[in-house]
Amino acid sequence: MSSVNVDLQRERSGASIDSEDFARWWAGGSDKLEERRALERFVFKDAELEEAVHPSCLSYKERYEQTIARSTKFLVKLRQWHSTNQPQFSLSVDSLREFRVLLSGQLGTALFQQSFPLRLHFSMFLTTLLSQGTEEQLHKWLNRAWHMDGIIGTYAQTELGHGTFVRGLETRADYDAESEEFVLNTPSLSAYKWWPGGLGNTANMTIVLAQLYVKGQHHGLQPFLVRIRDEETHQPLPGVDVGDIGPKLGGNGVNNGFLGLRNVRIPRDQMLMKNAQVLPDGTFVQGRPPLLLYGTMVYVRVITLRDVLHGLLQAATIATRYSVVRRQSPIDDNQPEVQILDHITQQVKILPQIARGVCYRLAADWLWNFYASVLDQLERGSGQHSLPELHALSCCLKAVATDEASEGIDRLRKACGGHGFLSSANFDSIYGMATAAYTYEGEYTVLMLQTARFLVRQYTDSLKRRVLPGSVTYLRNTARLSWGKDLAENAARALEISAMEQTRQAWQSQSMHRQRKLSEQQSNNLAGRQLTAAAVAHAHAFLTRNSLQELERLRRGPLSTQVSAVLGQLVELFVLDTFLRQAGPVLRWNSITGTQLRLVERRFEQLLTKLRPNAVALVDGFDFHDRTLGSTLGSYDGRVYERLMAEARRNPLNQEPVNATFRSHLQPMMRGKL
Amino acid sequence: MSSVNVDLQRERSGASIDSEDFARWWAGGSDKLEERRALERFVFKDAELEEAVHPSCLSYKERYEQTIARSTKFLVKLRQWHSTNQPQFSLSVDSLREFRVLLSGQLGTALFQQSFPLRLHFSMFLTTLLSQGTEEQLHKWLNRAWHMDGIIGTYAQTELGHGTFVRGLETRADYDAESEEFVLNTPSLSAYKWWPGGLGNTANMTIVLAQLYVKGQHHGLQPFLVRIRDEETHQPLPGVDVGDIGPKLGGNGVNNGFLGLRNVRIPRDQMLMKNAQVLPDGTFVQGRPPLLLYGTMVYVRVITLRDVLHGLLQAATIATRYSVVRRQSPIDDNQPEVQILDHITQQVKILPQIARGVCYRLAADWLWNFYASVLDQLERGSGQHSLPELHALSCCLKAVATDEASEGIDRLRKACGGHGFLSSANFDSIYGMATAAYTYEGEYTVLMLQTARFLVRQYTDSLKRRVLPGSVTYLRNTARLSWGKDLAENAARALEISAMEQTRQAWQSQSMHRQRKLSEQQSNNLAGRQLTAAAVAHAHAFLTRNSLQELERLRRGPLSTQVSAVLGQLVELFVLDTFLRQAGPVLRWNSITGTQLRLVERRFEQLLTKLRPNAVALVDGFDFHDRTLGSTLGSYDGRVYERLMAEARRNPLNQEPVNATFRSHLQPMMRGKL
Repeated sequence: MSSVNVDLQRERSGASIDSEDFARWWAGGSDKLEERRALERFVFKDAELEEAVHPSCLSYKERYEQTIARSTKFLVKLRQWHSTNQPQFSLSVDSLREFRVLLSGQLGTALFQQSFPLRLHFSMFLTTLLSQGTEEQLHKWLNRAWHMDGIIGTYAQTELGHGTFVRGLETRADYDAESEEFVLNTPSLSAYKWWPGGLGNTANMTIVLAQLYVKGQHHGLQPFLVRIRDEETHQPLPGVDVGDIGPKLGGNGVNNGFLGLRNVRIPRDQMLMKNAQVLPDGTFVQGRPPLLLYGTMVYVRVITLRDVLHGLLQAATIATRYSVVRRQSPIDDNQPEVQILDHITQQVKILPQIARGVCYRLAADWLWNFYASVLDQLERGSGQHSLPELHALSCCLKAVATDEASEGIDRLRKACGGHGFLSSANFDSIYGMATAAYTYEGEYTVLMLQTARFLVRQYTDSLKRRVLPGSVTYLRNTARLSWGKDLAENAARALEISAMEQTRQAWQSQSMHRQRKLSEQQSNNLAGRQLTAAAVAHAHAFLTRNSLQELERLRRGPLSTQVSAVLGQLVELFVLDTFLRQAGPVLRWNSITGTQLRLVERRFEQLLTKLRPNAVALVDGFDFHDRTLGSTLGSYDGRVYERLMAEARRNPLNQEPVNATFRSHLQPMMRGKL
Repeated sequence: MSSVNVDLQRERSGASIDSEDFARWWAGGSDKLEERRALERFVFKDAELEEAVHPSCLSYKERYEQTIARSTKFLVKLRQWHSTNQPQFSLSVDSLREFRVLLSGQLGTALFQQSFPLRLHFSMFLTTLLSQGTEEQLHKWLNRAWHMDGIIGTYAQTELGHGTFVRGLETRADYDAESEEFVLNTPSLSAYKWWPGGLGNTANMTIVLAQLYVKGQHHGLQPFLVRIRDEETHQPLPGVDVGDIGPKLGGNGVNNGFLGLRNVRIPRDQMLMKNAQVLPDGTFVQGRPPLLLYGTMVYVRVITLRDVLHGLLQAATIATRYSVVRRQSPIDDNQPEVQILDHITQQVKILPQIARGVCYRLAADWLWNFYASVLDQLERGSGQHSLPELHALSCCLKAVATDEASEGIDRLRKACGGHGFLSSANFDSIYGMATAAYTYEGEYTVLMLQTARFLVRQYTDSLKRRVLPGSVTYLRNTARLSWGKDLAENAARALEISAMEQTRQAWQSQSMHRQRKLSEQQSNNLAGRQLTAAAVAHAHAFLTRNSLQELERLRRGPLSTQVSAVLGQLVELFVLDTFLRQAGPVLRWNSITGTQLRLVERRFEQLLTKLRPNAVALVDGFDFHDRTLGSTLGSYDGRVYERLMAEARRNPLNQEPVNATFRSHLQPMMRGKL
């Protein structure tokens, strides 16, 4: 499989942009690009990390075992790299985050398309320990935990009966002042912890979120460090009922687990006490409100935004390469069959998804910088005023990006016809990972309603002529759309007006229900459709405006002419595509003529034509390693049919010419003897 | 697990409709309802047909083996029932279809959520044999095939390199007049047959579609009956390269296969010669054009429409029951947590999907009757004039229903939060089966473009004042929307106007490109977006108008008051929902005020409120057996948490307290010895 498919080769030589140039920009500079590539070479050359059998062919149990075998080796290897390349390493929230990116980024994806159980140790377990443990607790646990010295941890919050409504969690911890211990219990079936990654068969410790009771008095949810399996034997400890919750639509490497506790006792110093303490005599001391906890939620949403946009662009890379290799149906009857990307209907399915992924990236970078600056201000005692805006943006961007990226991934799969349906094409894993984020770390609708509440508050503030935060200043701009020559600007402005009007409608809907003597909460419930629509509209308004602004900002920096040009096309395509997809709200709240719409459509189609010759060079520029793509349809060499066949032949079902069920079932049935 | 969840019980006793009443209507009468239930009782009581392990936990090979073991037993049992209940049975296209419905309908789904390999024997293999075999061929093969006496068949058309563009298929059959044999060959990798169900390891015969060559002259695609595995040993015959193509997003029970042929010889009488013959000396005789073949394609699309609407309603049943059992978040702060279906945002996710499924059913029934009447006319020598309309409708309805039902299933899954993501909830299987239909039996975009071509032709006919077929008469109605009191009528009319205007725009776009001296085909390609949009708009216009008309027709018949009332609400909800979802095109092509839109929205929300108390009774009325739903979240008793936990505990990974990888990998890693 050495040579590259000729059609793909022709695309590369015919492109007007240099994919390496784009790759350097995309990676954040040539150093970062090279560093990532070097690490990939180091890891991928290890034959032990390859998969003998495609994971989709394995049983759930075999998949777990193969994942553990490979992920432990991967971790050892990564630490080896880490100690060579970062000898000065010291454990902090920031350095931990960098390490996590290796686990869950392109490298981790390459090795574990559906993730792996040990990730949770480094993400939720160590992070919570770091941010909620006292000095003494960190001294006792942190170093051991970082080195996994007898400790594999996870974080158990969600229960069978409660996810979104955290206050409703039922697991309880009663303080026994006599023995100076907490007694943990799962009082009902619905109180079982359910979902934590790695909990099923892997972790031997977990942080448990439980309702604290001291002398019968309730002191809210607190985190407890609980050993659940014996360090030496890995047997569940007495009172611990633990297991795996079973296969899922995606993320089948995670070993999500359930956990029931029955009178499990832990010493007093295993409640993480940075924010609240229980003294030996049972006195409860509430510490400062956890501002940083809030920050963690925002951080996780920014990361999620990055993850889903990477998933979208992986899918787009696969679909783009397949679409220039696949030839099907001539356009002119007497001509040869064309590359399917030459059908305009195929361009529509693919190119806007690339544009979307790139613009999500601009938003993720912007949000990250905003987050960092707020954090910085907070540390210096200010910045509180920016928290609601940061929170609202992180909510709706995470929710909308996850929803639309998942939809995009599925659309890209379908753009690859039947072959896209095969697990060896890998769209199923990519989709599963992306759509999971629809629910975790904040369910879509719940997040949208939180953003909407912020919007309505800002809107009513604007009526009182208060100053509004940057991302919502458009709420006080009551000017109607004035259609100019810059179509992208028209589109972005129309989307802002839609968002403003939709927010106004949500507020009016709430007010109308309030006037019917309903409570504020009931009114909010009844206005749920309008509120959600407002948050969606805000996300679109922000994403388009931010793309245009970031483009301008980047163009003021050292962007190469090529990258600048193609980025401009992508941003314009994204803005016009968003406008056209949101035609319902846009036309409802703006007065736009048929001629104006046709202009936008024609420009949209022109952009497809402009981008078509650079499609392959562009996706090459995202620089996903073949292992990261994990797809028979999307590899760099484009040898689609060879790879499809090779993967099929590897299937264990094909290793014997006749399956045993022929003698046991098919033949007896055919002979009427079953 | 005997008692029913109390919330679910309360829903049932509080409903204003009788689910049994609805079930009788839905099933097409109490006889049919009882017949289905009796067959279900007969089959489901058989412990041999149960699954020891949830199929999602099995390896791909184990899943195949479990499927073969269970499906052979199921077939034997079904024939037993069949011979008792249909002693007069004689094999015909119609009776075969009835038998197939048992295999692929609710019963087959209950036993094989991701289908099974032997279905293809009864669907494609026997059907093609019946419709394309000569009298002598039927005499020789049909009875044996029906009894699976040494024969398990499938149908091999699609190749690795060609699906949509059938003319491009590469497999060839050369006639050797000397030996009076055909010699079949796979001339390239892309010519491998790829996808046929049951082909991988199960079938021992297949109908192969191949390019016929006699004395070097090409005579188009013909069907050949080819034995691929030895009847006694099941070994692939010499020259046959056969295997399974591997795991997929769904339908993992199907055993889809690949097939390469190298100088495989079959006797002359194994070309199916009803429509074309090769005489012993090699003379090729073309028979009558296969009008009925055309009919089969339409038939398959009607069936697909039914399948996907059943999938949608299964998903809706699961989500509805879960949404009254699940309590999360209070609406008023000091009140208990509510059933999530009381959140209006949840009602919006679920109730319109029920309405949609019901209206698809009305369309499927209508299309079936139309199909039957055209077939009837064809047999009496007329009816040709209806074929283009029938074809166009079957294309766009299959495509749009599949697309939107899949989207609905996914939305319903997400409405069940994290638990919907579990395989034990079964949304993943339902989605996989539905979305597969996006591509098979006519790829979405290809079908839409076929419908669009019909629409444009009809539109230009309308300009010439020709009479238009029933489903497109609106294309000549140039009256603007006149907004009346009947909101559903306004909505349906607005959708018709959208479809008409969108068709006009597609035609104008084609004409514009033609004027730039492009060929007709190139112009069609460039107008692809507008053409597709026209076909989508036509489907919506048809679906809404048809729902309103069918409602009127049904109400003139013996519909109970209850069913009539709830059906009226569902149809209205569907029409308004379609209108609101299509707000982009609707507002583009109609002039509708904000006040009018708010009226529609308010009515839409009123309908949600009206339907809410009957949601459970309604989905009970679809009468899906728990086995058909196959879902921990959707069972009749609503014992969601018990079932989730029971299914998790059944997982083979949970059968031992410590997995072997602890000693082999986790412990060595923790000790730094890996």
